[in-house]
Amino acid sequence: MAVPLFRIFAVRPTFCFTQILSESNRVHLLKMSTSEENSETPLIPLKEGRRFIVECLQAVGTPQKHAEAQADLLIEADYRGHFSHGMNRLQMYINDITSKTCDAKAVPKILQETPATAWVDGQNGLGAVVGNFCMDLAIKKAQTVGVGWVCAKESNHYGIAGMYAMQAMRQGLLGMSFTNSSPFMCPTRCKKAALGTNPLSLATPSKNDDNFVLDMATTSVAVGKIEIQRRKEKDAPIPEGWAQDHEGKITTDANVAYDAGLLMPLGGSEVHSGYKGFGLGMLVEIFCGILAGSNYGTNIRKWGNSIDKANLGQCFIAVDPKCFAPGFEDRMSDLMDTIRNCEPVDPSKPVLIAGDPERNHMKFVDSVGGVRYVKNQINTCKQLAEKLCVKPLNS
Amino acid sequence: MAVPLFRIFAVRPTFCFTQILSESNRVHLLKMSTSEENSETPLIPLKEGRRFIVECLQAVGTPQKHAEAQADLLIEADYRGHFSHGMNRLQMYINDITSKTCDAKAVPKILQETPATAWVDGQNGLGAVVGNFCMDLAIKKAQTVGVGWVCAKESNHYGIAGMYAMQAMRQGLLGMSFTNSSPFMCPTRCKKAALGTNPLSLATPSKNDDNFVLDMATTSVAVGKIEIQRRKEKDAPIPEGWAQDHEGKITTDANVAYDAGLLMPLGGSEVHSGYKGFGLGMLVEIFCGILAGSNYGTNIRKWGNSIDKANLGQCFIAVDPKCFAPGFEDRMSDLMDTIRNCEPVDPSKPVLIAGDPERNHMKFVDSVGGVRYVKNQINTCKQLAEKLCVKPLNS
Repeated sequence: MAVPLFRIFAVRPTFCFTQILSESNRVHLLKMSTSEENSETPLIPLKEGRRFIVECLQAVGTPQKHAEAQADLLIEADYRGHFSHGMNRLQMYINDITSKTCDAKAVPKILQETPATAWVDGQNGLGAVVGNFCMDLAIKKAQTVGVGWVCAKESNHYGIAGMYAMQAMRQGLLGMSFTNSSPFMCPTRCKKAALGTNPLSLATPSKNDDNFVLDMATTSVAVGKIEIQRRKEKDAPIPEGWAQDHEGKITTDANVAYDAGLLMPLGGSEVHSGYKGFGLGMLVEIFCGILAGSNYGTNIRKWGNSIDKANLGQCFIAVDPKCFAPGFEDRMSDLMDTIRNCEPVDPSKPVLIAGDPERNHMKFVDSVGGVRYVKNQINTCKQLAEKLCVKPLNS
Repeated sequence: MAVPLFRIFAVRPTFCFTQILSESNRVHLLKMSTSEENSETPLIPLKEGRRFIVECLQAVGTPQKHAEAQADLLIEADYRGHFSHGMNRLQMYINDITSKTCDAKAVPKILQETPATAWVDGQNGLGAVVGNFCMDLAIKKAQTVGVGWVCAKESNHYGIAGMYAMQAMRQGLLGMSFTNSSPFMCPTRCKKAALGTNPLSLATPSKNDDNFVLDMATTSVAVGKIEIQRRKEKDAPIPEGWAQDHEGKITTDANVAYDAGLLMPLGGSEVHSGYKGFGLGMLVEIFCGILAGSNYGTNIRKWGNSIDKANLGQCFIAVDPKCFAPGFEDRMSDLMDTIRNCEPVDPSKPVLIAGDPERNHMKFVDSVGGVRYVKNQINTCKQLAEKLCVKPLNS
């Protein structure tokens, strides 16, 4: 079975810089790609993975409901094939909770609202708790007046942006979500990182349980892709347009790119319209930090800093298509199928719509009954189980 | 005075394919770039350009108010340096009106609304008339409930997307606008064009009359850039990632690219994450054709077809930042100035924010008292004046 794109669709580069990763973690990252590739590790049913995450989070003082929300977020990422944002992040969230950088007990509160909008204080709670609170609110407003537009300050890392967009989609609405993040993107012409990878997501329903789920960083590629490239073979080059060197110049040296950590915006260089990707990163920052009054741009803590509060800004939008032309899902289905059925340039690589690679991965997981994590992840889980006195992850 | 980026920021590739352009028009396109470069033609005050457009449109039966709306749209494009979308388009609109493909007298009507949304029938009216109607409505709704989200079907080409976004911005709101368009973009892996260049715009106010105006196609580059490249020198290559050949393969041959007319999405190839640009093109189509129930995707008439109705879909959003954290404009100003003041890679090329190139161009136009069109444009205007018995364009 071919799942050709899910390694590159929507995997966001927020997980693997040298300063915060041990060598073993980096090997882990390199290897974590598909459930199919880890045949030497045990098959973990999603339910068991969820049980383990919930118990680990409870062990460090997280209330059950909050632990379940965060577990659903991570398991959804693994299920969709975005292993970087799944179980792989558990250790990071636990670190943030134990260092009290994030308050796992915190409940978000509404600071101000209108029939269509709300401004929320996340109270430094878990990303999933803040995200679910805000999207629930956006959905209710969309169901009442057609649109709900909710911005939160004082939030934390909220996992895959698509998680919240899909919550609205499952109610028959268009869902969108956006988050700012630690500086990684170099604006066009600029020598330093001034914006995060700033992802955006749009999820829309369609006929027969089909759907469109766009979940993308506004940078050109994920750092993970640079890492994979540099480990492929000695001195393997990376394509122009992925990253800059310490001087801000475009580099094709994977080692230099990895060390500098200066990602280029979607598009890449100026001649390839990278300023559009930079503009989109700004759009996300405006919807998040600037509207919400959280940290923004270079004020956001560097990735790996677990001392200062993140105070991220996030934005959640729901729109009811029934407020517009009847037949939304029919047209959506027709548009997607028309494009999927277009003749591909390479007959072995069919044209895919955003969400298709993840759909393929989920079918695969369902067919085999779970996911296979890489060895390093299994070891990390074992250590966590011992440290937190939690029942180990079982196949 | 340096206006280095305005040739590539936000110029959309919807104006120059072989099948619809005479050779003289192609030369015109090649040359139309800055007001500074046309020193041999007369300086035309903006007011005189507007007068001429209004009278030409009235001469073919357009009511005065509608003619003024369309003239304001075209003159704004020229003022901002986007000559492709200014006076250059007058002939096309006149053709559409005289062939009755567009109804210059039509007044849009609301089909359905909620406090935050409206579904509008543009009744095949002029793009500016439909756009202004919808954005006015979105602004009123945002001023009442915080957000206004308006979708129109049965619209026509609406010029620069930023025009409508800026109307909201001038009221202290965030403004967005989107339009679908004739097929030009090849989805990732695909052999044919299945989406338009599908532009999006976000305009936001800031302190001291500063602002952010993103106005971008979701394709990698404008066809105009391919044309300029192929005329620069014989066999001058274009960068990989701009366009595909007739077989759908990436081409660096400007002549082949020009003939094929298959633009790549922002990002370019799959390895450069072109599927994100494709996903963004889909987002615009979902907000426009799919929500509004207009034509969409490959159903939209080909560019240059002036027999079939366009029935374009458009989307207009306004958001009141006062519904969120106080101090929006202060943070906006701080973010923009922080990034502008970042050290550039090349000291001669300062870091620019979306809207800066246009701001520079407008300052230049103000300083010299008007714009200079290329000779071909001046000739077209002379012919129009004669044909329509309108007072010629005067310097």
